[in-house]
Amino acid sequence: MADGLNFSRRLRRTPFTASAEKAGVTGFSVVNHMLLPKSYGRSVEEDYWHLREHVQVWDVACQRQVQIQGPDAAWLVQWMTPRDISHAKVGECFYVPITDDTGGMVNDPVLLKLAEDRFWLSTADSDLLLFAKGLALGRGLEVTIDEPDVSPLAIQGPKAETLLADLFGAHIRDIGFFKFGWIDFSGTRQLIARSGYSLQGGFEIYLDGGHLGGDLWNAVWQAGQTFEIAPGCPNLIERIEAGLLSYGNEMTRENTPLEFGIAKFCSLDGSVDCLGREALLRAAETGISRQIRGVLFDGGPCPTCAEPWPVRVDARLVGQITSAVWSPRLKRNVGLSLIDRSFWDAGQAVTVHSVDGTTRDGEVSDLPFT
Amino acid sequence: MADGLNFSRRLRRTPFTASAEKAGVTGFSVVNHMLLPKSYGRSVEEDYWHLREHVQVWDVACQRQVQIQGPDAAWLVQWMTPRDISHAKVGECFYVPITDDTGGMVNDPVLLKLAEDRFWLSTADSDLLLFAKGLALGRGLEVTIDEPDVSPLAIQGPKAETLLADLFGAHIRDIGFFKFGWIDFSGTRQLIARSGYSLQGGFEIYLDGGHLGGDLWNAVWQAGQTFEIAPGCPNLIERIEAGLLSYGNEMTRENTPLEFGIAKFCSLDGSVDCLGREALLRAAETGISRQIRGVLFDGGPCPTCAEPWPVRVDARLVGQITSAVWSPRLKRNVGLSLIDRSFWDAGQAVTVHSVDGTTRDGEVSDLPFT
Repeated sequence: MADGLNFSRRLRRTPFTASAEKAGVTGFSVVNHMLLPKSYGRSVEEDYWHLREHVQVWDVACQRQVQIQGPDAAWLVQWMTPRDISHAKVGECFYVPITDDTGGMVNDPVLLKLAEDRFWLSTADSDLLLFAKGLALGRGLEVTIDEPDVSPLAIQGPKAETLLADLFGAHIRDIGFFKFGWIDFSGTRQLIARSGYSLQGGFEIYLDGGHLGGDLWNAVWQAGQTFEIAPGCPNLIERIEAGLLSYGNEMTRENTPLEFGIAKFCSLDGSVDCLGREALLRAAETGISRQIRGVLFDGGPCPTCAEPWPVRVDARLVGQITSAVWSPRLKRNVGLSLIDRSFWDAGQAVTVHSVDGTTRDGEVSDLPFT
Repeated sequence: MADGLNFSRRLRRTPFTASAEKAGVTGFSVVNHMLLPKSYGRSVEEDYWHLREHVQVWDVACQRQVQIQGPDAAWLVQWMTPRDISHAKVGECFYVPITDDTGGMVNDPVLLKLAEDRFWLSTADSDLLLFAKGLALGRGLEVTIDEPDVSPLAIQGPKAETLLADLFGAHIRDIGFFKFGWIDFSGTRQLIARSGYSLQGGFEIYLDGGHLGGDLWNAVWQAGQTFEIAPGCPNLIERIEAGLLSYGNEMTRENTPLEFGIAKFCSLDGSVDCLGREALLRAAETGISRQIRGVLFDGGPCPTCAEPWPVRVDARLVGQITSAVWSPRLKRNVGLSLIDRSFWDAGQAVTVHSVDGTTRDGEVSDLPFT
């Protein structure tokens, strides 16, 4: 499947799109009504090996920020997530599942605490801004909620730290994982976090000021010449192997955070008053009936998983693959699936029923794939 | 620009996608996290002439329904829109601008009143479901809000009525514009409205039950053989000529309904208690500073408008084109732009600064283009 994308203003360009085009972008996805470059003419496998060895620059401006500020900002953010953020410090990032009253997931952003009364939610693909606005207006909260002109540029891969230390100063080496600091760029102060949608290490620069997009890309690009930098994007092989989940793919409003092993981020003991708490408590007490797992399966490189593929044990449906790709390292396909409780132990034999009509033998695996 | 779209489950397939693929779809857009077929290998111009003469079937399942039901449903719907819906009758459709507290547009759906306590909002491209959920949860309203398994299929063009009367019965001829009735299909009762995103006449079937998608497409397709039916999609030439607006293209949260001449749908006299009322009242009293207009411009067929193009009078910026295309009928380019008050009269000379670097002479036009 490689059909065309028809462009319009509604599918917003990013501050880095022109740079991505100069770098030879050939395919996009759409996230938060914005273009996400997804390929530059090389194979996903070539990008995968490159990402594991060198450094890449990714236009992930589609990770839009929902800025919540004001006297009730901390209260509202806490109301939206079962994760206890009362001890959060300025300069820290938190992965926060956002749930509605049923415990269903509405988004799974990274929260950045900028001040006691100012937060960014760096969002996956749903209009979290509208949900937060609705909650605030319905409840009459004293907050301002908007989408600032802030666009993340990710620099990922084992050489990212050295590249960025060369470019912006050695102090960035002191930024801990899921912490953020600041750099000077072109007379402006910019937020930089040690984070990103890969396990190969790296940073995300939350560029404040879209007009600087081309300059920032070029600066990183120039500094990256000695590190074999390439343009890239979240890599399907790497993210599935790493067990990194994608909202809209693995999780929707049909799912609770408990199903993704992120119960460890949920405080359901009563210390947190959040929207989905009662529903999640009930679910936790009953015991979850399915949970995310890896599935290794055979039959040669699988096609693109654009709709869920049944996972069976004999005739019984026990799950559905929501993302899958051939792993050149493991020499098998790797997929992500919620798996029913009775069948979720690693090693469980399953069959995967791919869109190409093939039935493929496979087995349940722990995550990340090793 | 004809770059590829990278598929994933997150970009949801519709109940009609497989049929669209069999019919030769070659390009998509993404609306409400769902695929919208945008071309079938013919030019936009060929599709335009065909739509004006014959009949087309469009997969517009991406117009997702936000279903709001319960004792507080009518109150919530009224709270979200400045349009007075207190006199709405079951069986009627209403174009309802949805605004936040600033009067900024959040969506511009078609409202279908199914019962006194049950509504569908057939949505443009933003997560109106999350906004409505937030409002209801924040305010503690007694409503249920969900996205039912309902997927509109549009049948558009001058031959649509005869085709559908042949297929489903002559009673559909009695359905008035922006009214809905019911048809029997494959043992189910399905909603059909006289509506659609063109001015060529036609209907939308709100298919309840995605598993029937292929069957419904096939039934329409077979019945359409004597009417020269073709697969199609909202046609850029036709919709711009008609002055049909697109949320995310012409309008965003930066805009109020007043700027689009839809003040006629707003009841700001105090009879309606809605979210943006005070802001809209202030804006109406001050007098709006810009309003939507057509722009006719020269220089041969323009490129795709994927980001706003400046519209100037001498050196002064007076607007920005947000959608544009070559009109084979008018032999000029037609565009849509908000235009500043001092320059919005029809006939005003302007220049359009297209992405291809050209400066094109043009003039302001009333809408629709005639």
